[in-house]
Parts: sequence; C-alpha cells; structure tokens
Amino acid sequence: MTENLERLNGRLAQIKRLGEVSELLGWDQQTYMPEGAAAARGEHSAALSRLIHDMFVDGETARLLSAAEAETAGADPDSDDVRLLAAVRRDYDRETRLPADLVSEISRHQAISHNVWVRARQENDFAGFAPSLEKMLDLTRRRAECLGYEAHIYDALLDAYEPSMRQADVARMFADIKPALVKLIADIAASVRPVDASLLHRGYPVEAQRKVTLDLAARFGFDFNRGRQDEAAHPFCSSFSRDDVRLTTRFDPAYLGQALYATLHETGHGLYEQGITAQYDPTWLGSAASLGVHESQSRLWENLVGRSRAYCEYAFPKLQAAFPDALGGETSEAFYRAVNLVRPSLVRVEADEVTYNLHIMLRFELECELLTGALAVRDLPETWNARMQAYFGIAPASDTEGVLQDVHWAEGLIGYFPTYALGNLISGQLWHAIRAQMPDIEASVRAGEFAALLEWLRANVHRYGRKYPPAELIYKATGEPLTSRYYLEYLTTKYADIYGLG
Amino acid sequence: MTENLERLNGRLAQIKRLGEVSELLGWDQQTYMPEGAAAARGEHSAALSRLIHDMFVDGETARLLSAAEAETAGADPDSDDVRLLAAVRRDYDRETRLPADLVSEISRHQAISHNVWVRARQENDFAGFAPSLEKMLDLTRRRAECLGYEAHIYDALLDAYEPSMRQADVARMFADIKPALVKLIADIAASVRPVDASLLHRGYPVEAQRKVTLDLAARFGFDFNRGRQDEAAHPFCSSFSRDDVRLTTRFDPAYLGQALYATLHETGHGLYEQGITAQYDPTWLGSAASLGVHESQSRLWENLVGRSRAYCEYAFPKLQAAFPDALGGETSEAFYRAVNLVRPSLVRVEADEVTYNLHIMLRFELECELLTGALAVRDLPETWNARMQAYFGIAPASDTEGVLQDVHWAEGLIGYFPTYALGNLISGQLWHAIRAQMPDIEASVRAGEFAALLEWLRANVHRYGRKYPPAELIYKATGEPLTSRYYLEYLTTKYADIYGLG
Repeated sequence: MTENLERLNGRLAQIKRLGEVSELLGWDQQTYMPEGAAAARGEHSAALSRLIHDMFVDGETARLLSAAEAETAGADPDSDDVRLLAAVRRDYDRETRLPADLVSEISRHQAISHNVWVRARQENDFAGFAPSLEKMLDLTRRRAECLGYEAHIYDALLDAYEPSMRQADVARMFADIKPALVKLIADIAASVRPVDASLLHRGYPVEAQRKVTLDLAARFGFDFNRGRQDEAAHPFCSSFSRDDVRLTTRFDPAYLGQALYATLHETGHGLYEQGITAQYDPTWLGSAASLGVHESQSRLWENLVGRSRAYCEYAFPKLQAAFPDALGGETSEAFYRAVNLVRPSLVRVEADEVTYNLHIMLRFELECELLTGALAVRDLPETWNARMQAYFGIAPASDTEGVLQDVHWAEGLIGYFPTYALGNLISGQLWHAIRAQMPDIEASVRAGEFAALLEWLRANVHRYGRKYPPAELIYKATGEPLTSRYYLEYLTTKYADIYGLG
Repeated sequence: MTENLERLNGRLAQIKRLGEVSELLGWDQQTYMPEGAAAARGEHSAALSRLIHDMFVDGETARLLSAAEAETAGADPDSDDVRLLAAVRRDYDRETRLPADLVSEISRHQAISHNVWVRARQENDFAGFAPSLEKMLDLTRRRAECLGYEAHIYDALLDAYEPSMRQADVARMFADIKPALVKLIADIAASVRPVDASLLHRGYPVEAQRKVTLDLAARFGFDFNRGRQDEAAHPFCSSFSRDDVRLTTRFDPAYLGQALYATLHETGHGLYEQGITAQYDPTWLGSAASLGVHESQSRLWENLVGRSRAYCEYAFPKLQAAFPDALGGETSEAFYRAVNLVRPSLVRVEADEVTYNLHIMLRFELECELLTGALAVRDLPETWNARMQAYFGIAPASDTEGVLQDVHWAEGLIGYFPTYALGNLISGQLWHAIRAQMPDIEASVRAGEFAALLEWLRANVHRYGRKYPPAELIYKATGEPLTSRYYLEYLTTKYADIYGLG
C-alpha cells in the first residue's frame, strides 16, 4: 500500500544521516580541528555535500516521491505521511529549480568572497569588498529568479530559512515595532536610573564557569547522555540526531556574561533538537521547523527565562557560590540589572535584547533595497551609517565596525537576518501563551523548576519537528498568527521597570 | 595521454576523502560522543561505508582502472602512476571478489558476535560465545575461499592487513625466536637483579601529565598545527589527511606509565601519517604501507627510543620537574629500569616488550589451527591455558583473563594479530639500519635531538605512503628482507644488561 513511501523514507534516511555527518565535520572544524587541516576539511565537506546533493536530486527520489504522493492521495491531510511528503516536495522542488552551473558558481564565489571580506574587514576597505558583494548580489538575484516568487524577490530567499514567510510580513511586523523601539532606546539613554554592569566584568575562573554552565544547562533539562558542551570561538549548537546534540560556549575569564548567556542560548537550541519526536529522527520531519522557530527557543531560554528577575533570584546564589570573590558582596537584584544593561552599540553580536532587533531591521531594509536596486552597493556604507545614527543615536567610525561586521552577505546568506528577529518575536508570543496557561511560571522559575515549561515547549513546539510550517506551528501553539505585539509589550514593561521609565 | 588515470584519481580522491570522514566518525565516537548517541552513530557509519563501498566497486572504477592501466602500459614500473594503479588493482580485486551477500552476512554477524562476546567475557562464559565464534570462523573460511590463496587459507586473511605476507613467512619468523623468548622470560624470572617499578605507581597529577606528554610528542617532531591529542579509553591514532592527525592517550592519576607510553606509541603512528608525501595525500598512495609497518613506527618511538637508557636520561629531568613529589628522590637509571619491567602476565595489552610477542604467537598459532580445523572451538580454552603455561609459566584462572580477553576474533579480525609482532620485528630491523648509518643516534637521543632520526624515517619509510608493498619497503630501507634476528638481538642484549643475565 505504501511501498513507495517506505522506499522513499529509506532513501531519505540515508541522505539525512549523511547530512548529520556533514554537521559533525562542521562541529569538529569549530571545536577541535587543528589549523593546518583547513584545506583537507574543505575537501571533506565538498565531497560529502556533492554526494548528498546528487542523492537527493536523483531521478529515483523524484520517482518515489511522485509515487508516494499518489499512494497517499486520500490520506488524512494532517497525517505524518502527508506532511512529510509536503516537506520533501518543497525541498525537492527548491533544490531542482537551481541549475547545477549556478550552484557551482555561487559555491565558488562564496569561498572567494569570504576571503575578500576577511581581508576587507581587517583593513577597513569597503571599496575592496564592493565588487565581490556586487557579484554576490547578481548571483543571488539569479538564484531568486530560478526559485521563483510572487510579490517580492526577497520572498524567494527568505523562504529557504523561514518557509512561507514573505518579505511583506516581515516588513509589516518590523514597521509595527520600530518607532516604539527607537523611542525606548532613547528613553533608556536618558534614564536617571542607569544600570551598572561592572559586576560581570571581574575575575571569573574558567574551570568554575565550565562547571556552573554545565549545571545550569542540565537544570534546564538538557540531557547530557544525549549531548555535550564544548568550546568554540563563535558558540553554536549542532545536532547529529536527536540523541547527539552538541552545545558550545566560550569562556572569558574577565566577563561572566559571555559564557553564561552563550550556554543558556545554545541550551535553548539544544532542548529543541533533543525534543523532536523519536520516530521522526531519521525521517524528513526530524529537524526544526525553521531558523526563526529555532531562534525562538534559544531566545526564550536565554532571555525570557534567563534574564528574568525570577531566574536571577534562582541562579544568583549558585553563581555566588561558584565565584565568591567576584560576587560575594552582590545581590541578585544587582545581578538582574547588570545582565539587562541596554546600551546602543555598533556591533550586532554584542547587542542587548532591546537594541538587537533594530540591528536586524537595518540589515533587512538594506538587503531589500540592494536586491531591488533601490540602493547601490557604493552607497551602502553611507546609508548604513546614517541609519545607525537615526535608530541608535550612534554611528561607526569605520566600516569594519559598520557594514563590514557580519559575514552573512559575503557568504551569500541574504534573507537570513530576519530569522534572528523573528525568533525574538516568536519567543515573546510563546511566552505570552505560556504565562496565560501556566500562571505559576514565574514562581517555578524562581524555584529552579523548569520541567513543566520544558514539557509545554516539547508538547507545543519541539515534538513536531518539521511537521508543521512555522506559521501553522505558531498558530497551533498560541491560538494566534505571529504578531510582534507580545515581544514589544515584554520589552517595554520589563525595561520601564529596570530603568524607571514613566 | 593519461586522461583516464586523471579521472580515476579524481574518483579515488572523492572516495578517499569520504573514508577520512568515516575515520572522523570513529574518532569522535571514542573521544567525545555522548553515550546515548551510539545507535545513531551506527547508522552514520553504515550509511557512509555503504556509499564508499558502492562508489569503489562501481563499474566506472573498473572501466577507468583498466583504461588507465592500458594508458601506462609502457611506463617506468617504479613510477608513482604504475605503483598507484597496482595498489588500486589490488584493492579493487579484493573488494569485488566478495559477494555482497557474504559481506552483509559478515557485517551482521560482527555486530551480534561482538555483543555476545562482551557478555561472555563479563560472565566468564566461553561456552556461550563458542557458537558465535564457530559461525565467525565459518564465515571467515568462506571469505578466504572467495579471496583466494595458494598455500594456506590464512594467507587470504593476512593479506588484508599485511599485503603479500604469507602464513609460512610469519610461522618461520616466529619459530626462529620463540625458543629464545621463552628462555629469556624464564631467565628474567630467575634473575637475582629484579626490577622495582613502584616509582611509576605514585601520584601523578593529570594536568601535569597532559602538559608533559604534549611536550614530549612535540619534541619527537609531531606537528601540532596538523594534529592534536585527546583522551580515549583505548588510545589510538587516527588520521583524516596528513594534515589532520589525531593522537589519543589515557591518564591514570596513580600510574605514569599509562599516559607516557601511550603518547609515545601513538606519536609514532602520528609521525608516520604526517610524513606521507604531500602530493600523495588525496591519492590512493596517501596512506600507510601496512598495519605491520605502521606498528613498526609506533614501537620504534615507544620502545627502541622511548624505553632506551639514552631517552630516559633525556626525559627523566623533565618528568622530575613535572612531578617533583613522585620523582624528586629518584634517578634516571631507576626510571629506566622501572619502565623496562618484564613480568609474564595474562593480558596482552598490558604486556612488556619481551613477553608481548609471545602473546601474539599464541594467538597466531591458535588462529591457524582453528581455521584449518586442527583445533576445535570447544577445545580452545584448554589449549590456550596449556600454552600460556608452557610459554609464560602462568595460566589464567578464568577465560575472561584468557581466551576471551581480546575483541578481535569476535569481530572477525582473524589474521590481524601477527601485524603487532611484525611491527616489533620491523622496528628492530629499522633500528639496526639506523644505528649503522647514524652512529651518534644514542647521543642524539640523550640530547633530545630527534630531527635526524625523524628525517631518516621520513626519507626511508614515511614519505612513500603505500607506494611500495611492505616487503619491498623494508628491503629498500634496510638492504635486507624482513628478519626477526635484529629484534631478538635487541631484546636479549638490552634485558641481559637490565636483569644481569649471564
């Protein structure tokens, strides 16, 4: 009856497992690989990627997919089988719409453009990077045309990271909150109750940081029998099946905020991966719904939980015990204020909860304008700096700290940035639903009891893997379409209290 | 002119790189992988192995190989191209002689048999393991028949690990030295100058062990820009290209010998991998000549160098500085004697230089007899114990410490054991040639100068990769066919001195 579906699933399981092996190559590269191995590692990744791509776009996949679609024609549209086939169809059509020549050309240009960017950033030489970016934009436009779109060229790109999300949706949500965020930032800057975060910048012995971060990740519910934590220069979470989830963090012996919040953030990602339904694991449903939904999980644990007053009351005594020299004379309230310092800054990856989204909005606007030609590459630095001034009240003195700071465009990751902000918005909406359904959530967090929260996320988000597209998943979990309202409310309420705003 | 050869090399480069990815899966499994990931990792390895096998035995490989052989028909028989094609031909013929059904059956039985062995060893239940071993022997005989051999069924198996080596060669070399080894062991047991190794069994802080082993590996010439050292329960060396060589070691806080000699041993393997000619790296010549030659490198650095009096004079002050509490009152001569303790023991992996080869001989004899049917599986424990008594003067009280101690037979690794002893013999022969050509070698070792030694090994062994079969490589390096003579001389001279024998 479902013979073709079974054979398709067998084929996809092989492909998915090989994709996980590819993830391991990336994890190793960022954690333990010796420097001299970079060239060979490039060949390993390329050989494996080519194989995976070839297996996936092979005619046999298409044949089995069509046959399986026919077999399940009358099945429950909400069944796993039908949903799985929809996900496979989506990916298959996307992958096969791109001509092999264009894929190779993009791949070659990515490697070159990355190196050009590295040098340009070091030498503050935007003019040297501009031709590479021009070419990347051309290639990206060609890619978008092959993939197809209805309303906006950006839709074809965004869809890769946030399925079915449109440029217009993002633009509307961002427009809804931008004025309020700009105002909030200005109000905070003018506050008469400024935050002193100096207690985070003291001596924090690395071994104690390692121990306490592992403990806090475990308390959230991360299963260290099915995962671990290592170190990486740019912390990330990687997964080679739901039973092998690798967190990474980074230790700064003079700043606690780095490792602490990197761990809480990556643990949020890791809990999602560990929580996908076991039977989905080797199937095409066995991964996250989207980058935005993934980011909602990291942000929820890092910020909505980890930067709450309740969590600080829970965690501070542990931290005080781990770092008696640095925190012996401090209070959990001082700690809470310190980890919620808001300060307009030039660099996205160092931004706080309030300013972070504005960094993303800036990039989103510029990406859209560059793609449509409304903005020329040569005018990019000037426009960047002008909008930084308008949104943040500060502007970079160099392009290195400005338009050259992120690797994304150099690597052709255009349409990716919004997922970071969407993660924040989704986390706010989920948190709103959680508070409505679990009125005791704050008390639970204060008591260090996270099981019910994790259970809620498991039941409403994690377990589904890719079964539902993000919009549907969010609607099912919260009873509403995605809205920026709750995240904005969360920010304004929280920071009005901290900064004593009218 | 060599278009097919180039295409063949391109294809083989992909296959070799994927094989290296497979090595990474194994390395991760033994170093960092969380326990819960075992099942998924099995699927990763299986998916990748299947792919590699399919790519290699594909008709396209055969077509390109035959065409390339024709293209190079008149070329210098010693050229890289001709040698490479010989190596590919050898592997291709071996791989394709085995029917896919037999390969799967062996693979399935390996997994089962391994688990049966684990339980049997725990419960000292040889009878419970016997049927699995019977079946493994049957499958192994079928495998050998498919692979083909002229003189002895064992030849077909040994050839996988030690190309072109025959059962008769091994039997002859072992017969040459067995009586002398048995006598040496008895003489040592009766010595009036026994060795006291207690200084190795003191408190050795792990962090200091880590630091000093890394230093000693680097002093040998291991390039940590192209490799690293991690921890593993059973130390090994793995390589994912000549530019990415991973050593592992194990730290026992109460015994220095474990980490110290595991590191020197694995460094020997690692130096070999790092020393293969760079241009060979992505080609079919870019790996070691054989397991025996590989083991000769580990043994040479671990024993011929690392357990020499000259090396102890060099290393002891460093160790004394690293472990002042444990070694403060000791001398390098006491240290030298301690690391050369000879004591008949039941367990191969704990054996010293003198008794180690006898452990191998025992296994080799039994393997041959089991395969030919001269020995029945049910009689194996009794025969094992009787020969232990005859060779070592001791016999195990349980099969767990006896015939069940090694994993090899359970996994179908029959024909593998001799390579350990061959490694010792080769190391002795190489060392003899080195001493003849570098009369100052002892003084260099005493001074901690290893560059000339490494250069000799690079020039005569490492750089060739798989270009020459082991017998040819050894002849080129030493001017003689492989002989057991030099290793036996080395052992008898060294231990007569240490134990004050006639």
